[in-house]
Amino acid sequence: MAEKKEERGITKRSEDYSEWYQDIVLKAELADYSPVKGCMVIRPNGFRIWEKMRDALDAMFKETGHKNAYFPIFIPLSFLSKEAEHVEGFAKECAVVTHHRLGAKEGGGVEPTPDSKLEEPLIVRPTSETIMYSMYSKWIKSYRDLPLLLNQWANVVRWEMRTRLFLRTTEFLWQEGHTAHATHEDAWEEVLKILDIYAKFSEEWMAVPVFKGVKSDSEKFAGALKTTCIEAMMQDGKALQAGTSHDLGQNFAKAFNVRFQNEKGDWDYCWQTSWGVSTRLIGALIMSHSDDKGLILPPKLAPIQFVIVPIFRNEEQKSEIMAKAQRIESSLKENGFECEIDARENLSPGFKYNEWELKGVPIRIEIGPKDLEKGVCQFVPRISLSGDELEKPLRIEASLESVVQKAKEILSDFQEALFKRALKFRESRTYEIESYNLFKEKIEGGGFFWAFYCGNSKCEEKVKEETKATLRLMPFEEEKEERPCFVCGEKSKIKALWARAY
Amino acid sequence: MAEKKEERGITKRSEDYSEWYQDIVLKAELADYSPVKGCMVIRPNGFRIWEKMRDALDAMFKETGHKNAYFPIFIPLSFLSKEAEHVEGFAKECAVVTHHRLGAKEGGGVEPTPDSKLEEPLIVRPTSETIMYSMYSKWIKSYRDLPLLLNQWANVVRWEMRTRLFLRTTEFLWQEGHTAHATHEDAWEEVLKILDIYAKFSEEWMAVPVFKGVKSDSEKFAGALKTTCIEAMMQDGKALQAGTSHDLGQNFAKAFNVRFQNEKGDWDYCWQTSWGVSTRLIGALIMSHSDDKGLILPPKLAPIQFVIVPIFRNEEQKSEIMAKAQRIESSLKENGFECEIDARENLSPGFKYNEWELKGVPIRIEIGPKDLEKGVCQFVPRISLSGDELEKPLRIEASLESVVQKAKEILSDFQEALFKRALKFRESRTYEIESYNLFKEKIEGGGFFWAFYCGNSKCEEKVKEETKATLRLMPFEEEKEERPCFVCGEKSKIKALWARAY
Repeated sequence: MAEKKEERGITKRSEDYSEWYQDIVLKAELADYSPVKGCMVIRPNGFRIWEKMRDALDAMFKETGHKNAYFPIFIPLSFLSKEAEHVEGFAKECAVVTHHRLGAKEGGGVEPTPDSKLEEPLIVRPTSETIMYSMYSKWIKSYRDLPLLLNQWANVVRWEMRTRLFLRTTEFLWQEGHTAHATHEDAWEEVLKILDIYAKFSEEWMAVPVFKGVKSDSEKFAGALKTTCIEAMMQDGKALQAGTSHDLGQNFAKAFNVRFQNEKGDWDYCWQTSWGVSTRLIGALIMSHSDDKGLILPPKLAPIQFVIVPIFRNEEQKSEIMAKAQRIESSLKENGFECEIDARENLSPGFKYNEWELKGVPIRIEIGPKDLEKGVCQFVPRISLSGDELEKPLRIEASLESVVQKAKEILSDFQEALFKRALKFRESRTYEIESYNLFKEKIEGGGFFWAFYCGNSKCEEKVKEETKATLRLMPFEEEKEERPCFVCGEKSKIKALWARAY
Repeated sequence: MAEKKEERGITKRSEDYSEWYQDIVLKAELADYSPVKGCMVIRPNGFRIWEKMRDALDAMFKETGHKNAYFPIFIPLSFLSKEAEHVEGFAKECAVVTHHRLGAKEGGGVEPTPDSKLEEPLIVRPTSETIMYSMYSKWIKSYRDLPLLLNQWANVVRWEMRTRLFLRTTEFLWQEGHTAHATHEDAWEEVLKILDIYAKFSEEWMAVPVFKGVKSDSEKFAGALKTTCIEAMMQDGKALQAGTSHDLGQNFAKAFNVRFQNEKGDWDYCWQTSWGVSTRLIGALIMSHSDDKGLILPPKLAPIQFVIVPIFRNEEQKSEIMAKAQRIESSLKENGFECEIDARENLSPGFKYNEWELKGVPIRIEIGPKDLEKGVCQFVPRISLSGDELEKPLRIEASLESVVQKAKEILSDFQEALFKRALKFRESRTYEIESYNLFKEKIEGGGFFWAFYCGNSKCEEKVKEETKATLRLMPFEEEKEERPCFVCGEKSKIKALWARAY
C-alpha cells in the first residue's frame, strides 16, 4: 500500500478511509498497538486530549451536582446474572479471572497454580451497574438519600476480536454515571440533562454536530428501559454513536434490591439511570475533522494550541528572533494558552510546518527577520477560518503588542469555523427519503437518512440485513403528520435516522 | 466492641488504634468494603481527596517535563518472567485472566467456556514496567528521543489476603512514572528529583513530615538497583512508606531491549527509573492527623474547607441569617474556596457540629442572631491553631466584610499548625539509640529509632525477627564518624532509621 501514501506517510482519505484514519492515529502519535491483543497504548498526544475532555466533562457533571467515586474493577460472576438482559448483553465477551497466584512451571517460566483457583470467577468490569448497585442497596435507606448522583472515571474491558484504535478496543477508558432517584420522572429528567451535557460537549468542545434521540429496542443498552444517544457523522458519511444516557427504570433496583423509604414510610424501588462516554470520542474527533495533511483539532481540546516557528539565517538573527519568540511564548502561557517553540536545529521551517500540521496544532506562529523589522508575527491557522474546507487558510499578521488579543480571537474563530465546516458537511449529506429503493442505492455513498418508520422491528431488521444500515435514533418529538413507513408502507408518526455506523 | 465506642461511633484511638482507623474511614464515608474480597469502594468524600492529591502531584510532574500516557491493564505472562528479580517479586499474588468468554452453565447461571481459554494467560498489572518498556523499546531509537519522561494514573492489582482500607487492598489507584535516560547520572538525578517532589507534596499538601533515604537491599523494589523512599510516622508510632522512587539501572532495558544510538552512533542500553505513590496516601493522611472526634484534613486537600452552620430560633431570624450565610458562601466560592451551607432542618447545631467534625472539615463558620447584630461571624477551626494537640481550638470572630481575607489567613494558619503538630509528634518519638537491648524494650511503645548499622543483612534480619522492626531507610549522606553497629558491634558510618511499619 506504500504507493498510496503521501510523503508524510498518510494514505489519502479519498483512497482508503480506514487506512487514512489508522495512519493519522499512528503518525500523530496519538496511540499505538500494544503487545496485548486488542489493547492499545494511548500516547501522550492522545492522552492529553483525553485529559482535556475529562476535565471539561467533569466540570459539567460537578456543576449539576454529581460526585466522583471509585468501584472495584472486578465483578463476581453471579452479579452479572442477576439482571437477565444484562448478562445476555455483557457476559459473552469479557476477561475472566480464574486464579490469583503464579508458580514455577516445569521446564521454566511461571503458570497459574491450581490451588489458587477462585471459588467464583471474577469478571473484569465491562460496565459497573451490578457492582455499583450492590453498594447502592447498602447506602440508600430513605428518600433523604436521593437522588444519589455518582460518576466514575475508569477503564473497562470488553473482549473484541476485530479492533480499531480508539473506536473499538478490548480495554478502553470512559466515565460511567450511575444515579438513583425517587420517581421515574426525576430519573428521566436526569437522562435528558446528561444527554444535553453530552451534546453541548460534542458541539462546543469537540466542534462535532450531533443529533439527539432515542434508540430502538434492538439497539438499547442491555437492561435499560430506554437508551438515548447522540449520533455524529464522520467524513465517510458513517454514523458514530458518541454518547449514551440510559433510563434503567427499576430493572436493576429490583435485581439488586435498591430500595428507599418514602415520606409516608413505605418502601419503594429506586428509579435509576446510567450514562457514559469513552475514549471513542477521540476517534470521533479525528474522523470528523482531519484531512490528508494529518490531524485537525479544535483549540479547546488541542494539547498545544500554538507552535512558534522561528526563522533565521544566521546567529545574529537567531538570538534576536529567539528572544522575541520566547517573549511571545511567555505572554501566551501567562494568559492560559498552551504554546511551544520549535527551536530544533538543522531542520528547515518547511519540515517543521509539515510536522505540526500532521500533529494538528491549530495555529502556527511564524516569526522571521522581516517580521521582526516590522514588529509583527504571522498566524497561520491549520484550516481556513471561513469554514470552507476547499479554501486555503490565510495567514494573519499580528503586531507583537497585540499578540495575546489576536491569539484569543483566532482560537475562537477557529473553534467556530471547525464546527461550521463539520455542520455544513453533515447537512450536505443528510437526506429526507421516502423510497426504500432509492435509499438502498444512496446508502452506498454514505450519509444520514431521515425516513418514516412503522415501529416494527421486522422492518428494522430488513433494513439492516439488506443495506447494513441501522436505525440510529428517533427524535424525542413525534411528527405531526402520519406518513408511510419507507419499508412496509404502514402509516406512522415516527421519523427515524438511518445510517451505516461504526 | 460497642462499649469502646463514643457516641458518634468511633472507637477511642488510645484503646484500639486499628479499629479507630477503620471507624473513621467508614463513618466519615471515605471508603467502604465491597462484595469483592480485598477490594474497596472509594466513596465521594475519599475520592475527592484523591482527586486533589492527583491534581497537585500531576501539576508538579508536568512542571518538571513529564507527560501522561496510558498502557494496557493486561500483561502477557511471559513479560513478567523477563526480569528475574521482578517476576520473583510480583508473580506470586496476582489476578490471572485465563478465559475471554462466558456461556450458559448446566443448571443455570454462566461459566467460562472452555473454548475461550487463552493461549497465554494475562496478568492484571501489579505494576507496569514490563508492558511499558516493551513499547519504549519500539519508540526509542536515538539519544534525541531521551529522556523519555512518562507517567500513568491507573488502577493496579496485587492479590492480598489480609487487607485494610486504603493501606493494603487487592486493587488500588496510583501513579507510576517511568523514565528512560542516556546516562546513569541523569537517571539518578531523576530519582532524586521525584523523591523531592514526593517529600514536598507530603509536607506542604498533606502536612505530613517525612524522612528521605535509601532502602536496604532486602526492602528494595524487585528489579531495581536502588530504591529511595519517604517514610512518615503514624500516630501509633509506626512507620508508613509514603512513596518510592527507583533507580532501575539497565536491568529492564536489557530484559526489554530498550536501546538508543548515542551521539557517536554506538548502541547503548537506556538507564531507567520508576516511581509511584498510591491511594495509600489517604491512609497516611488519616493516621497522621485524625483524633477521637473523627477525621482531620489539611485545608489544601479537604473536599470542603468551610461549612457554614446558620443558627436561628424562628422564621424571621432564619430568613435574615440564611441570606447572610448565602452571601458568605458565594464570596468564599468566588474566591476559590470550597464551601457548603448546612441548611438541614430539624437538626440541632450541636448535631451538625459533630457531623462536620467527624468528616474533617477544617473550619466551621457559625452565624447566629447575635453575630448578625454585631455584623460578625465565628470561625471555629477543627484543631488548635497553636499546633498543640492538647489545647482547645479557639473560636475567631471575623467581621462580615473581612470574611474572605480571614478565610485565607485561617486556612494557611491551619495548614501550618497541622504540619507543626505532626512534626512535634514525630520529634517527640524519634530516638537516637546505641543499645540493642534498650531498642528491643522501647520499640514496644512505637517510634522511630536512629541507630548505626554495619550494612550486613544478617543484622537486619535479626532485628526483624526479634522485634518486628525493619530498616526503613538510610540517609543519602554518610555519617562523619564510625560507630559500632547496634546489633553486632562492628564499626560503620551507616546510620539507619528503624521502626515497625505498615
